[in-house]
Amino acid sequence: MELNQVVSGLDTIWVVLTAAMIMLMEGGFALLEAGFVRQKNAVSIIMKVFVDIAFGALVYFAFGFALMYGKDIAGFIGGSGFFMGGDLSHIKEVTKITFTNDVYWLFQCAFVIAVISIVSGAVAERISFNAYIWFTIVMTGLIYPIAGHWVWSTGGWLGKLGMVDFAGSAVIHALGGFAALAAAIVLGPRIGKFTADGRANVVPPSNLPLASVGAFILWFGWFGFNAGSTLSATNTSIGHIAVTTMLAAAAGSAVAIIFTSIRYKKADPPMVINGALAGLVGITAGCAFVSSEIAILIGVICSICMVLATEWLESKGIDDPVGAFPVHGVSGSIGTLCVGLFAQKDLLGRDYGGLLEDGNFYLLGVQALGLVLICVWGFVLSYGTFKLISKFIPIRVSRDEEMIGLDVGVHGVPAYSEAGSFIDVVELTAEKSSETGISK
Amino acid sequence: MELNQVVSGLDTIWVVLTAAMIMLMEGGFALLEAGFVRQKNAVSIIMKVFVDIAFGALVYFAFGFALMYGKDIAGFIGGSGFFMGGDLSHIKEVTKITFTNDVYWLFQCAFVIAVISIVSGAVAERISFNAYIWFTIVMTGLIYPIAGHWVWSTGGWLGKLGMVDFAGSAVIHALGGFAALAAAIVLGPRIGKFTADGRANVVPPSNLPLASVGAFILWFGWFGFNAGSTLSATNTSIGHIAVTTMLAAAAGSAVAIIFTSIRYKKADPPMVINGALAGLVGITAGCAFVSSEIAILIGVICSICMVLATEWLESKGIDDPVGAFPVHGVSGSIGTLCVGLFAQKDLLGRDYGGLLEDGNFYLLGVQALGLVLICVWGFVLSYGTFKLISKFIPIRVSRDEEMIGLDVGVHGVPAYSEAGSFIDVVELTAEKSSETGISK
Amino acid sequence: MELNQVVSGLDTIWVVLTAAMIMLMEGGFALLEAGFVRQKNAVSIIMKVFVDIAFGALVYFAFGFALMYGKDIAGFIGGSGFFMGGDLSHIKEVTKITFTNDVYWLFQCAFVIAVISIVSGAVAERISFNAYIWFTIVMTGLIYPIAGHWVWSTGGWLGKLGMVDFAGSAVIHALGGFAALAAAIVLGPRIGKFTADGRANVVPPSNLPLASVGAFILWFGWFGFNAGSTLSATNTSIGHIAVTTMLAAAAGSAVAIIFTSIRYKKADPPMVINGALAGLVGITAGCAFVSSEIAILIGVICSICMVLATEWLESKGIDDPVGAFPVHGVSGSIGTLCVGLFAQKDLLGRDYGGLLEDGNFYLLGVQALGLVLICVWGFVLSYGTFKLISKFIPIRVSRDEEMIGLDVGVHGVPAYSEAGSFIDVVELTAEKSSETGISK
Repeated sequence: MELNQVVSGLDTIWVVLTAAMIMLMEGGFALLEAGFVRQKNAVSIIMKVFVDIAFGALVYFAFGFALMYGKDIAGFIGGSGFFMGGDLSHIKEVTKITFTNDVYWLFQCAFVIAVISIVSGAVAERISFNAYIWFTIVMTGLIYPIAGHWVWSTGGWLGKLGMVDFAGSAVIHALGGFAALAAAIVLGPRIGKFTADGRANVVPPSNLPLASVGAFILWFGWFGFNAGSTLSATNTSIGHIAVTTMLAAAAGSAVAIIFTSIRYKKADPPMVINGALAGLVGITAGCAFVSSEIAILIGVICSICMVLATEWLESKGIDDPVGAFPVHGVSGSIGTLCVGLFAQKDLLGRDYGGLLEDGNFYLLGVQALGLVLICVWGFVLSYGTFKLISKFIPIRVSRDEEMIGLDVGVHGVPAYSEAGSFIDVVELTAEKSSETGISK
Repeated sequence: MELNQVVSGLDTIWVVLTAAMIMLMEGGFALLEAGFVRQKNAVSIIMKVFVDIAFGALVYFAFGFALMYGKDIAGFIGGSGFFMGGDLSHIKEVTKITFTNDVYWLFQCAFVIAVISIVSGAVAERISFNAYIWFTIVMTGLIYPIAGHWVWSTGGWLGKLGMVDFAGSAVIHALGGFAALAAAIVLGPRIGKFTADGRANVVPPSNLPLASVGAFILWFGWFGFNAGSTLSATNTSIGHIAVTTMLAAAAGSAVAIIFTSIRYKKADPPMVINGALAGLVGITAGCAFVSSEIAILIGVICSICMVLATEWLESKGIDDPVGAFPVHGVSGSIGTLCVGLFAQKDLLGRDYGGLLEDGNFYLLGVQALGLVLICVWGFVLSYGTFKLISKFIPIRVSRDEEMIGLDVGVHGVPAYSEAGSFIDVVELTAEKSSETGISK
Repeated sequence: MELNQVVSGLDTIWVVLTAAMIMLMEGGFALLEAGFVRQKNAVSIIMKVFVDIAFGALVYFAFGFALMYGKDIAGFIGGSGFFMGGDLSHIKEVTKITFTNDVYWLFQCAFVIAVISIVSGAVAERISFNAYIWFTIVMTGLIYPIAGHWVWSTGGWLGKLGMVDFAGSAVIHALGGFAALAAAIVLGPRIGKFTADGRANVVPPSNLPLASVGAFILWFGWFGFNAGSTLSATNTSIGHIAVTTMLAAAAGSAVAIIFTSIRYKKADPPMVINGALAGLVGITAGCAFVSSEIAILIGVICSICMVLATEWLESKGIDDPVGAFPVHGVSGSIGTLCVGLFAQKDLLGRDYGGLLEDGNFYLLGVQALGLVLICVWGFVLSYGTFKLISKFIPIRVSRDEEMIGLDVGVHGVPAYSEAGSFIDVVELTAEKSSETGISK
């Protein structure tokens, strides 16, 4: 066997294993969201995660990948690789990946599923299931692939300008977060979330242990998300990436514990969960380019801003049930800008770094420009898509379905059943129980 | 260090990591089954999964592995390697694995545990715990190893004929599924599942969020199951395997959403969960040998057949609480035959392919022959084993235990307890509460 | 590319992936503990796991790692590497790791988090949250790093004497277990755990399915814990380590099933869960050095002793809600001593082995000496730390908070909420419901 075959095998298993870890994050999203929403909607939110992974993968296979990584057309969009066919030779030429395009697709597919899953939380407890499927198709097939093309494809114009987004604070999280914001606004708040005079009511999460474990699974998957984005096992920054990822997440959780202990007089569990995630989202753009100490700082800033953004959203009457915008939109934006502030020349491999490292405004400017465009793109297109869908089908469930809950109202089954016996056989069972002397 | 040492290390960690992923699938099975059964039996089903992994591993170490992969005797059974001792040199000679037999055993052990876990779902809520332990010993020590020997061992007669089953649609899933069917028939339905006139009653799953997360964990583990079956990190089909696995699962879920929306007027959550699994089971035999488009087709077919098979089972008065037969037996059979229809010559590395790719009937014939034999073997031996066990101990719990639930009835503890205080201290606590002015 | 770069990349991804698996064990601990405690304290125990991972990682980055793996001072403590800065060149010189110190830190960080998580279970349901944070800082910054230095650092005196602890039965588990014991004693039992005449009351676990899945996640992570401790993917004992890990865990579960079936007339689910963990803890020291058969024996011994130790603790009036001491302290101690009894010369790479393999008392003597010192160190320092903390802040919640439960009492939110509507909007909702004719 030749050495290059070994390198190719090594890179292949690295990317396949990390892609699988990112796919497992869907289990994390499902737990997190099912735990945060009310019990009567726990199944419906998980069904949306199934839509993300099922329709997302199929759409991305059919045309999303082609628009994102196909042969570049004017720096704006890709144009080959539908159903993974056609000419994709430019990928290997430019990225120096040592593995097949199959492996490349798998990793990118894991990413697109993460994007749409961000939105699923913001629309929880009220969106029509069919409308969500249509939005998923547009998001994974058009909105995300085009924005992603600008930054990550071989010919994308933002990438050429010098925009840096290692594993997607902007392309994945800010885009997903602003799409989530648009969705939350266009759908309107859940019935009862705000009082007539605009006060927000508290929604107790239905299952915090599930939500917490969702966060731990997401944390685990994030090592794949960030370190796997090297797309090469011999990339010597893998260790540094994993460490900055760990430290930002730790700082995000620790600060959420301290900050909410001061602000609310109690360490607030949902905020601690989201604080860890905010740190992870924030470090995603710069994990390979900033120092460990800056990673901690990014975790701190993102966590505090996430708490404040959550309060701000509520004060504006916007209802984002799981905090998708504060976690992904806000922290993703901060993380993207922090690259412009703190990136180190040598880690970046360029002759300039971030403003505070290097005194050079260029990188910060490009990051800000790219971020604004991506956020506007995500917000406007998502808003428009929902408006368009609403011309054909309702985008919100009926009032009755919302009151009953989407689980029983739409999917015909409750999330949790304590029934000891079978539905429709109450009499039968009662009768048999009395025979055996067992009382239910 | 020499290159071959590096290759050996690379293959070792690939197989150890994917084996660990398959072991984690036990957590997935546990969640899936505990979520699907009634609350009063959630612990008892998880205890069966502990039996699978504990007794399964020990039995497979003691003699199961030897019968499956030991020195071939007449193409039918292995005869060396008990307690991993004795002559196992033929394994390295033929399979070209670069790692130690320890690693090989670990991966195969993860597989045998998956087989018996398939059966655990079908016998839920009524089997005697001790009978289940005895069946586990026979299944992991005899029934599966012998059938597996025919197809996968170096001298197995079905493998020599040309039967192809990459990661076990037949050997693992069809065998497990038909064993599950035999078990469900021999045990009979749960009390109250069917009315006197044969109508099936609905059992609401006790915890659908748990079941869903079980499915996501299984999906994650399946990347290890299928891609790890290369047993070599430099096998260039790893990427293709991972992609076909992903697409079949996505297609299985998406079609279950669409098909149940049409058939039942609602996207049915348990069917969506099982649809994803059906796609995964179906692609397991052919993941390395069929195109991506065919992988999607296999997911579609398996998902629809799984729904129909679930209805058919109920119409026949057979009670399979978690759908083990429709998911594993039916989809496993379809997947095995699809190799005979769709396998590509070049991917297969033979001078013939599947019937619809190549016009050659041979492969389809061999697949059908092997499948029928494995299914009959699994069904008959399992049926006979339960009948044999029933000569010595009851294979079904008492009526009282079933009515109370196996958790309290057999294991003495409920799955879920909302008790805020300690059992036996009701008075004590009440008294102290009144002291402190806290009401419970 | 050179071969040594490939080896470095291979080792890097091996250690990063296994470190991530160990981090995921925090999700396992969270599930296990939340499932074992009463429902009213399920969130509070998970918040402690967040403290473990967040404060643990930050403290270990700031100074814990420096004290453990920094330049050796007198065999007792390290003195460089604060914030990963300064001279750490001795690490590469001695350990022959092929990757950056970043990667080394990440793996060690995953370990320190596991240590403190052991304690979190023993203090459940009654410790003050702030006191727990302070203890976490001392444990991860001082107590564990110093003891770890003795055994695992390049200059540690116990390591130089010949003490062997492959992945930490002593350094991680016995230390953590004895710290947990000290904490349980100093805090005293939960209100109502023991009757006035010293009888222990039964606490029904609130969620056994969650606890079980926690165990499966821990089992999965343990493959990373033990096999990853090679710190090299080309170490040829990886396969053997994974197999002994698997067999000890399987034996621990199987024996717990059999032993409790005999002793309590029922296979006791919490004991089966802890039996698997006891086997895993016990094999951690010797996984690379003992035969497969001895691994099974270690699982058997640890599982039985865990059950007996649980009974013994209760008979002494010590309240360890999740069994941290029996699982980690007792099994960790047994595992450490078993190396002295059963280690094989060739696997150990020395000219002497364990007493029963080799007739040589030396290794057993060193293991016993090291074990005793580590256990005493862990117990005394932890006891003293809690006493010291109690001079400044209460280490136990108020009686009222304990009766209400720490979730609502301290963190202001219940673990589980079945509320179908929003808090504070009962009237609003009721009124609107009547409008729509929906009854709640």
